[in-house]
Amino acid sequence: MKIDLRSDTLTKPTPAMLEFMMKAEVGDDVYKEDPSVNELERRIADMFGMDSALYFPTGSMTNQAAIKIHTQPGEQLIADAYAHVYNYEGGGVSFNSGVSCKLLSGNRGMITASQVEEAINPPDFYHSPLTTLVCLENTTNKGGGACYNFEEIKRIKNVCDHHGLGFHLDGARLWNAMIAKNENPKDYGQVFDTISVCLSKGLGAPMGSVLVGKQQFMDKAIRVRKILGGGMRQVGYMAAAGIYALDHHLDRMRIDHQRAKALGNVLERMDVVASVEPIDTNIVIFNLSDSPSKQRFIDQLSEKQITISDMGQGKLRIVTHLDYSESHHEHFLMFLQGFR
Amino acid sequence: MKIDLRSDTLTKPTPAMLEFMMKAEVGDDVYKEDPSVNELERRIADMFGMDSALYFPTGSMTNQAAIKIHTQPGEQLIADAYAHVYNYEGGGVSFNSGVSCKLLSGNRGMITASQVEEAINPPDFYHSPLTTLVCLENTTNKGGGACYNFEEIKRIKNVCDHHGLGFHLDGARLWNAMIAKNENPKDYGQVFDTISVCLSKGLGAPMGSVLVGKQQFMDKAIRVRKILGGGMRQVGYMAAAGIYALDHHLDRMRIDHQRAKALGNVLERMDVVASVEPIDTNIVIFNLSDSPSKQRFIDQLSEKQITISDMGQGKLRIVTHLDYSESHHEHFLMFLQGFR
Amino acid sequence: MKIDLRSDTLTKPTPAMLEFMMKAEVGDDVYKEDPSVNELERRIADMFGMDSALYFPTGSMTNQAAIKIHTQPGEQLIADAYAHVYNYEGGGVSFNSGVSCKLLSGNRGMITASQVEEAINPPDFYHSPLTTLVCLENTTNKGGGACYNFEEIKRIKNVCDHHGLGFHLDGARLWNAMIAKNENPKDYGQVFDTISVCLSKGLGAPMGSVLVGKQQFMDKAIRVRKILGGGMRQVGYMAAAGIYALDHHLDRMRIDHQRAKALGNVLERMDVVASVEPIDTNIVIFNLSDSPSKQRFIDQLSEKQITISDMGQGKLRIVTHLDYSESHHEHFLMFLQGFR
Amino acid sequence: MKIDLRSDTLTKPTPAMLEFMMKAEVGDDVYKEDPSVNELERRIADMFGMDSALYFPTGSMTNQAAIKIHTQPGEQLIADAYAHVYNYEGGGVSFNSGVSCKLLSGNRGMITASQVEEAINPPDFYHSPLTTLVCLENTTNKGGGACYNFEEIKRIKNVCDHHGLGFHLDGARLWNAMIAKNENPKDYGQVFDTISVCLSKGLGAPMGSVLVGKQQFMDKAIRVRKILGGGMRQVGYMAAAGIYALDHHLDRMRIDHQRAKALGNVLERMDVVASVEPIDTNIVIFNLSDSPSKQRFIDQLSEKQITISDMGQGKLRIVTHLDYSESHHEHFLMFLQGFR
Repeated sequence: MKIDLRSDTLTKPTPAMLEFMMKAEVGDDVYKEDPSVNELERRIADMFGMDSALYFPTGSMTNQAAIKIHTQPGEQLIADAYAHVYNYEGGGVSFNSGVSCKLLSGNRGMITASQVEEAINPPDFYHSPLTTLVCLENTTNKGGGACYNFEEIKRIKNVCDHHGLGFHLDGARLWNAMIAKNENPKDYGQVFDTISVCLSKGLGAPMGSVLVGKQQFMDKAIRVRKILGGGMRQVGYMAAAGIYALDHHLDRMRIDHQRAKALGNVLERMDVVASVEPIDTNIVIFNLSDSPSKQRFIDQLSEKQITISDMGQGKLRIVTHLDYSESHHEHFLMFLQGFR
Repeated sequence: MKIDLRSDTLTKPTPAMLEFMMKAEVGDDVYKEDPSVNELERRIADMFGMDSALYFPTGSMTNQAAIKIHTQPGEQLIADAYAHVYNYEGGGVSFNSGVSCKLLSGNRGMITASQVEEAINPPDFYHSPLTTLVCLENTTNKGGGACYNFEEIKRIKNVCDHHGLGFHLDGARLWNAMIAKNENPKDYGQVFDTISVCLSKGLGAPMGSVLVGKQQFMDKAIRVRKILGGGMRQVGYMAAAGIYALDHHLDRMRIDHQRAKALGNVLERMDVVASVEPIDTNIVIFNLSDSPSKQRFIDQLSEKQITISDMGQGKLRIVTHLDYSESHHEHFLMFLQGFR
Repeated sequence: MKIDLRSDTLTKPTPAMLEFMMKAEVGDDVYKEDPSVNELERRIADMFGMDSALYFPTGSMTNQAAIKIHTQPGEQLIADAYAHVYNYEGGGVSFNSGVSCKLLSGNRGMITASQVEEAINPPDFYHSPLTTLVCLENTTNKGGGACYNFEEIKRIKNVCDHHGLGFHLDGARLWNAMIAKNENPKDYGQVFDTISVCLSKGLGAPMGSVLVGKQQFMDKAIRVRKILGGGMRQVGYMAAAGIYALDHHLDRMRIDHQRAKALGNVLERMDVVASVEPIDTNIVIFNLSDSPSKQRFIDQLSEKQITISDMGQGKLRIVTHLDYSESHHEHFLMFLQGFR
Repeated sequence: MKIDLRSDTLTKPTPAMLEFMMKAEVGDDVYKEDPSVNELERRIADMFGMDSALYFPTGSMTNQAAIKIHTQPGEQLIADAYAHVYNYEGGGVSFNSGVSCKLLSGNRGMITASQVEEAINPPDFYHSPLTTLVCLENTTNKGGGACYNFEEIKRIKNVCDHHGLGFHLDGARLWNAMIAKNENPKDYGQVFDTISVCLSKGLGAPMGSVLVGKQQFMDKAIRVRKILGGGMRQVGYMAAAGIYALDHHLDRMRIDHQRAKALGNVLERMDVVASVEPIDTNIVIFNLSDSPSKQRFIDQLSEKQITISDMGQGKLRIVTHLDYSESHHEHFLMFLQGFR
C-alpha cells in the first residue's frame, strides 16, 4: 500500500468526477464561450457575494494577476514572511509586477493589524516604495495550515481602508479554513478586494484556480490573464471538475482535518518526535528529535512506501487529502504506533 | 446547421479523443509525475529531434516563455509586422521580457534573410537596443496561413548564427505548414533554438501548447513557466488529447486545406468579392467589393448561421478545421454559389 | 581650425556662462533645497504656463520618466518610426515601462492625426495592448530637425482627448522649433500633458533636461526620478547654466538655423552631393552621390579636421550650434565651395 | 550660527574645489570625450585595482545598475534588512531589475557568512527565486555608520564563490570605512565584483557616484546607464570636484569621525539621552529618554538652528561632515553640555 502525503495537490479525480468532466459542455473560453467555465465563475462569484470571477490554470497565476491588478511597478506589498506569493511563486511579485515585499514576522504565517499599520511606508517619503497592497494567506501553507481569526482580518481591513491599500487573499486553501471555522464565504467577499481559491488542493480537481473580486479590479483581470498566457480554450472539462468538487468534496474536508489531528496526537507521543506544531486543518508539521532512531524512522517510512515532505533541518510535513483513505489512515497510524 | 469558421481554436474533442483523454494516466506535473504530460513532451521532442519539450497551458505562454529565455530586458527582437507575438499576445513581449520589437514589412507575414540582416542594430552603438533574437511565425496567422520557403528559413538561420542571435519559431500552426509542404519536423528542429507548437488549433485538442528546444534554453523553461503561473497539476487529461491528436488528426489537415482552397475558388468568382488572398493552408482571407450586395452578403451569412471573422475594412477571414465537416462544406459552398 | 558638427550636444559653456554657474547658489536638491534648481524649474513651468517642472540629468530620463508616468506595463504608445524614445534610448520604453511602441511611417519623423486615429487598438480587444499614450518629437532628430505644423499637433490632441490618451512631447530641440516658427511655449503647454526640454543642445548648457507638465502627472515624477536614480545633490551649478542659457542663448539659435540653410544651399549645388533634405532648423542631412569624388570628399573633411556624422549608406549629418562660430562657418563654406 | 547635521550630502564645494571645477577640461561624455570624467574613472579604477569605472549622476543609480548587471528578472539578492538598496532606492531593485530581496537580520546593518550561506535558495527548487547576488553596504547607513570586519567580508566572498553568486558593495560611505579602519582600496577591489562609491557625501563633491568593477560586468554598465537615463554631456565640471576631493578631502574624514565620537561621549552623559549607538565613523544615532526634558531638547535645537534628523520613535541622527567646522563643533558641544 503506497501512501503519498506530500501534498493535497496530488489527488486524482474520482470516477464520478471524471464522468462528470467527460460530460461537460465546453466552448472556446478565449471568446468566453465555454459554458462550464462560465458556470464555475458565476458560481464562485455568487458564493462569495462578489461581482465576478475568472478561471486561471494555476493558483500562482491567480495570485500574480491579483498583485499586478492592485499595483504599479516600484510599489510595495505587505505580507507575512511565510507568504506563498513571496516564497514559492518563483519571484513572480518582482518579475511580473516590479513590486517589492515588506515581510513581517507573524505567527505561523499570520500577521496582525498593528503589524500592518507599522509596516506602511510614509507616502510622502519618496525614497521608500509606496505601500499599496496587503496580502494575507488563509490557511497558511508554510505556517502549517493555520487559520486566521476573522476578527483580525477585519481589523486589517480597517487599516487598509484607512491608508487606501488594496487587500488580497491568497485562499489556495481557504476552503479548509472555512470548513474548520464554520465561516461564510460571503464574509470574506465583504472584506477583501480580490480572493484567489484553488480547485486542485483539498477539493480534488485536477487543476485550476479562480480569482474572484470587485468589478473595478476584475475588469483588468482578463487582460492580465492574457498577457501572462493563461487564456485557455475548451478548458471546461477542467472547470467541470471544479463544479463537481464544490458539490461533493467541500464538506468532506472535515475528514482530512480529523485525520490530520489524529496523526498529530500519535506523533506527539512518539519518542522520535521532538514537537508537533498546532494542527488547525489538513497540514501536520513536526520535528524529529536528534536521536539515533531519527534515521530509522525516515528509512522505515521509505520502506513502507509512505511518502511525506522533508522541509529540511529535521522538520517533516504531512498533508491529508481526498486520496488519503480510511485504510491508508489506519495503516499509517498502525505504523506510527508500532514504531520503536 | 450552424457553421463556425472564425477560428480553428473552436474545435471540440471527438468522442474518441474524449474517451482517450478520460482514460489517461495522470499525476502531479509540478513534480513532473504526470505520465501523459511526460509522454507528450518526450514525443514532441523526438519528432523534432530536439533535446526536450515542456507542456504549457497556451500558445501565448510558450512564445512568451521562449522570448524571455532568449533575452534580457532592454534587448530587441526582430519579427514581421504581422507577428502574433507583437500583435495578439497583449503586449507581453514588453511586459514579460522588457523587450522591444523591430518590425519588418514582410510578405504576408514572412520576412527574408536580407531584411533581417539590415534590421540588426550595431552591437557597439549602445543608444539602440541590442538585437538578440529573431522570431518567425509559420504558418502566419495575420498573413492568412502563408508558409515559409524552408530555404529562406535556412538563410535567416545563417544570419542569426553570424550575429549570435537566438532563433525562435512561433509554430502555432506549424503542423499545417509541414503538411502543406511535406516537410520534416526534424529539419525544423535543426535550424531553430526553440519552437512552440499548439495542440488546440488544427489538431483539435481542447487546450495546450508545447515548447521544444535545445537543452541550454529548455533548462530555463520550467522556471519561466512557474513564474508566469503555468505549472499545472493533473493536466495529463489535456496532454492526452494532444497525444491522440498527433496520432489521428495530423494527416487529415490536408482536408482542411483542400476545403479552404475550394472555398477560395468559389469566392474568387463572386461579384461581391473584390479579391482573395493566396491560400496555402486552412485560412482564407478575402475582401468584399464596395457594392450594394456587400451588406446583403453579411446579412445572409448571419441568417444562415454561418459565422466568419470580420477583420475590419471589408476584410473577412475563414478558418477551416476539424469540426468543419463535409456536410458543412457542401452547405457553405452551395450558399456561396447561390448568392446573387 | 577644428570644426565639430556631429551634434549640438558638444558645446561647452562660454566664459560668461561658466562665471554665472560658479556663482550659483546651491543646496541639496534631494531635499528640494537647491535654489538654482528650484528657480530653473519655476521658470520653465511659467514659460509653458504649466503646473510644475522637474530637473533631470538627461533628456533620455525625462522622456522615460514621462512614459512611465503615463502608462502601465503592457500598454502601447504611438510614435513615429523615427522616434528618439524608440530608437536611441536604449530600449528604455520596454525596459523601464514594459510598454510597446506602435510605430507609424510619418513625414520626416512627423505623424498626422488621422494616422494616430487609425493606430489606436480597440480597447475591448484584449489580445492587443491597450493604447494609452501618443509621443511626438519636435523638432525631429532622425527627421533632420523638421518642425511640426502646430495645427496638426492640435488635431492630434483632439484624437487623444477623444480616446483618453496621454500626450507627451519629446522637446529635446523644441527651442529650435519655437524659434524657427515664432511659436509661443504657452501654446505647447496647453495641448500637451507633459513636455521634456533639453538644456544641453542648442542652448549650450553642459547637461540637464526638464520635464514640465500638469500637476496630476508631475506628482508622480519625483518618485520616478528617484527610482531611475536621477535625484542629484548640489546640481544647481548645472541648473544655473540652464538659467543663463534661457536668458542669452535662445534667440541666437536663429543664427544656427541661418548657417544650416547657408550650408544646405552650397551643398545642393555640389556634384558630390546627390540630395539635401529640407532644412527647417539646425540640422542638415544630405546624401553623397555615388561618384569617384565621394571618398575624396570624406577624406578632405578629415584632413581639414571638419567632423560631421556618418549616418550610414552615404548619408551625412551636420548640426550647427553655439560653438560653431562665424569664422568656422566661413572656413567650412570656403571648403565646400572650393571642393572639386 | 546655523548647523545642519542631517546628512553629509548637504556639503557645498569649498572655494578651492569650486575653482578647480570651473577650470576643468570638459567634453561630451556620451561620446566618452570628457577628459575630466575619463580621468576620474581611470583614477578610481586604479585606486581599487579594478578593470574599469563609470561615472553616474547618483549613488542610487550606481547600485541599481550594478544589481541589473548581476541579475536576471525573477532572481533574488541577499542583503541586510537595513540595506539602502532595499529601503531607500524607491523600490528600484524590483522596478529596474525585477529582482526580490532576501533580507537578513544582521548586526547594525552587517551580515555574516553563515547567515548568507543559510539564505541561499536551493538552485534546483524552481518554486523559489534563484539566488544570484549578495549586496553588502559599508559603512551602513541605517546601521549608524558601522564598518564591516574585513575578515567577515572575505568569508562572505568564499560563500559567494562556492555558490556562484555575484558580490556587490554599496560603498556610498566606503571612504569613511577605509579611513576608520586604515584599509586599502585594493583589498576591496580583490573581493568584490562591483563597488559603488559616492563623491557627494564625506568627500564633499556636489554630486556624482562611480561604479568600479571587473571588466565582464563593466562591459554592460554603459548600456544600463544609458537605459536608466544617466549618460550626461559636459559633466566633467562635476567629475572634477570628485578628483579634487580625492586629493584633498579623503584624509580629513578622520576629523568628522573624531567629532562624531566627541558628540557621542557628551550625549552619553546627558539625562535626556537614553542610549547612544556605537560610533564607528561619522554617524551618531541616539535615543531620547521618555522624560519631560525630551520635547525641550528638541525645541532648543530648533531655536539654536541646529538641525538633525528625526528617525521616528525618539531616535535621532547626527551626521558630521566637511561643512561642520570646528567652530560649529564647539558651539554644538557647548549647547549639549549646557542642556538641563
